[in-house]
Amino acid sequence: MMENNGMIDRRLLLTGMSGAAALSPFLSMQALAAGHGSHAAYDWHEELSNVPGIKMMGNEQIAMLMYPDFTALDLVGPYHFFAGMMGATVHLVTNQSDLRPVKSDLGLAIQPTITMADCPKDLDILFAPGGTTGTIAAANDPATIAFMADRASRAGYITSVCTGALILGTIGALRGKRATSHWSVRNLLGQFGATPVDQRVVQDGNVVTGAGVSAGLDFGLALVSIMRGQPYAAASMLTAEYHPVPPFPGGTPETTPKSVRDPIAALFDDFVASAKALRAPE
Amino acid sequence: MMENNGMIDRRLLLTGMSGAAALSPFLSMQALAAGHGSHAAYDWHEELSNVPGIKMMGNEQIAMLMYPDFTALDLVGPYHFFAGMMGATVHLVTNQSDLRPVKSDLGLAIQPTITMADCPKDLDILFAPGGTTGTIAAANDPATIAFMADRASRAGYITSVCTGALILGTIGALRGKRATSHWSVRNLLGQFGATPVDQRVVQDGNVVTGAGVSAGLDFGLALVSIMRGQPYAAASMLTAEYHPVPPFPGGTPETTPKSVRDPIAALFDDFVASAKALRAPE
Repeated sequence: MMENNGMIDRRLLLTGMSGAAALSPFLSMQALAAGHGSHAAYDWHEELSNVPGIKMMGNEQIAMLMYPDFTALDLVGPYHFFAGMMGATVHLVTNQSDLRPVKSDLGLAIQPTITMADCPKDLDILFAPGGTTGTIAAANDPATIAFMADRASRAGYITSVCTGALILGTIGALRGKRATSHWSVRNLLGQFGATPVDQRVVQDGNVVTGAGVSAGLDFGLALVSIMRGQPYAAASMLTAEYHPVPPFPGGTPETTPKSVRDPIAALFDDFVASAKALRAPE
Repeated sequence: MMENNGMIDRRLLLTGMSGAAALSPFLSMQALAAGHGSHAAYDWHEELSNVPGIKMMGNEQIAMLMYPDFTALDLVGPYHFFAGMMGATVHLVTNQSDLRPVKSDLGLAIQPTITMADCPKDLDILFAPGGTTGTIAAANDPATIAFMADRASRAGYITSVCTGALILGTIGALRGKRATSHWSVRNLLGQFGATPVDQRVVQDGNVVTGAGVSAGLDFGLALVSIMRGQPYAAASMLTAEYHPVPPFPGGTPETTPKSVRDPIAALFDDFVASAKALRAPE
């Protein structure tokens, strides 16, 4: 298997910079190095390929759903690590009818690459980001749910970050599974037949879920580790300098001062009420 | 000051959902709550406004530079926290001549909101994201450097994440300042007259810099804390569930196994060589 990976690498590297640059930062950097020609004596790619347990090349098909008012960081965190897997193809799938940029809840709009209709049928990873009102709307949209249910029926891994778990629940993918979500709706996962777990990333078989928003970075690295081995994830982690140092403690209901936590929790009350109405199919 | 903030809040909340929803997740959620009408007895906004040291409302003008092959996560991390500041306006500024989506280094393209020519002259926060070849190109582009130098001359805070510090260095903004950058080029900051600091986020006067890629989350929260007080940042941190738990140790050259670190460090050698050629103006 390592030999096969090596062969694929060599072929892809030979396709040159324009194709290579689109594949991953690793290949892009390789092309840069080749352009300068100063590394004849040390082949970083070969060195890294020799690390036990690493899978340098793959051809994963990954679909990341986008819908109006999704939370951009829920998606861009894991995207950074998914798209860094050499040879993987990441599809940004809009649930709208055309390829216009999809506006996230804070305003930032991301260009989709494909519509649900054109998205590959067989996926290695299917991913749903979260949001608030936008996520409820997506979970109540028959076309979006039909798309997600169909692709999930054959996907290698069915995944979400934040309240995206509500979409997985609505298609029935969480039944009998341990799963997590944003703290505001984590305990609602039981209504989809799941066992809620208060953990940053939860894997149960082929279902992998992350906690709220920023958990997408931990989630993304966990998925890369599953797909390509921990050394590959360690390389991505170093490239992204992922050594988080929050400026002060907090980030969970338990670690946030009550004076801040109670109002913010109340702020989510009506979103939670909307989420409570969602159900898995019979 | 708190009274003034209260007055501004009231006026903006009265403008209703469509305008309010564009401002921040807090206002968006407030509108949602108002729609359901179930919180007459508990006004989360008033409760949070009463927390000592919090500044609920502002009117910051924030400009985040985008250029071809920037690293999307460098920008989307801090964007999440900047755009969550009620009343702030975040401009996504393209260095291209039109408003077409700007493609990041991994492929994901983000819709800019404004060109450099149309960007407000007076900014509260000026921000540069990083990248590799794209960052070198931006730092060598006279129009981009002229724009950044002009806005920096009047900006409240001059900021960057990752190798975006190279752009700040090129406009002379790091002279005499303590600053950080991605580990691969951190020690080069001396060539711009800065003192490199190996720290997640570094503030020196009105210059605030973050380390590589994922440091944008720590950096974003630090800036929110500066602009709106720590309780506001704590509220954003809880909303984003920012309580990072990397799946395994790593993320810095010191904490990454040598077998992975050495090849990845070599991968950056030629980018580092390009960065070495950059200089601050005389």
